[in-house]
Amino acid sequence: MNLDEALELIAELPDFPEPGVVFRDLTPLFGDPKAFATVVDALAEAVGDVDQLAAVEARGFVLAAAVAYAKGVGVTLVRKAGKLPSVGGSIDYALEYGTATLELPADAVRPGARVAIIDDILATGGTVAATQSLLAGAGAEVRSVAVVLELASLGGRERLGDVPLHVLKSV
Amino acid sequence: MNLDEALELIAELPDFPEPGVVFRDLTPLFGDPKAFATVVDALAEAVGDVDQLAAVEARGFVLAAAVAYAKGVGVTLVRKAGKLPSVGGSIDYALEYGTATLELPADAVRPGARVAIIDDILATGGTVAATQSLLAGAGAEVRSVAVVLELASLGGRERLGDVPLHVLKSV
Repeated sequence: MNLDEALELIAELPDFPEPGVVFRDLTPLFGDPKAFATVVDALAEAVGDVDQLAAVEARGFVLAAAVAYAKGVGVTLVRKAGKLPSVGGSIDYALEYGTATLELPADAVRPGARVAIIDDILATGGTVAATQSLLAGAGAEVRSVAVVLELASLGGRERLGDVPLHVLKSV
Repeated sequence: MNLDEALELIAELPDFPEPGVVFRDLTPLFGDPKAFATVVDALAEAVGDVDQLAAVEARGFVLAAAVAYAKGVGVTLVRKAGKLPSVGGSIDYALEYGTATLELPADAVRPGARVAIIDDILATGGTVAATQSLLAGAGAEVRSVAVVLELASLGGRERLGDVPLHVLKSV
């Protein structure tokens, strides 16, 4: 299965979680062994040479964990508020719909570590930009951001500054 | 790194998320490349021959996704309420602290599929038992449950019926 075929498994569901929003559902892609492996391999290649991956809760966990295993690096979970017993950094940010807080575990990032951020979808970029700030605050060097799908009309890539963005598909 | 060394990276943090609960923190294990790979490989071997993995939100996503990639199978995300655009099954259950609802995506499990459930920790077993029910309700054959850590004093394994439980460490 090639990458285009794998990405065609992403489903579109209108009006979720709010009217007017088209939800991109990666369930069929995650459930298909070849599609999942193809996408994980493509992300692993895209992020290049890094020491560690940062995974954005919750679908980012799925992709980042598999990519971390494929690359032989560790994975740090960037979590929603209240999940971590020991918080190393916290940031409030605006979502496509609503607001949220992200937290970085204490001692989870070595200062100077080359880190790539992995998530499923880049929408407004608020989540990824917040993750960048958290990692930078912990002394990491954010080397790249990789997502499966970019919703280009929402302009998320404008919020990432100079960090290279790798997208497997832009719509 | 052998498995015992990897598992020694699990940290214990008292009184989180509630007084009297000792939180087992897998952050250091996930962040260590060798420990993470060692644990993923051990889980992959433990679950045996299955068609698909079911991942319990959210830390289960990390392990199940990497194991799915390692085994060349797909992964289905069993989610907390309100996250899925298209719900194939829903169940309320009791947690170690509080209550919760889990949902299975629509069309995510093929009837007759041999599925293993992966999570990080088996505590009271409520989450895993609920996941078993959801999968069975969708026509799956739950072949095994695999977790990194069993909190044996909470008796979770008694709730899993005849399904084989694989634990990397029991405390």
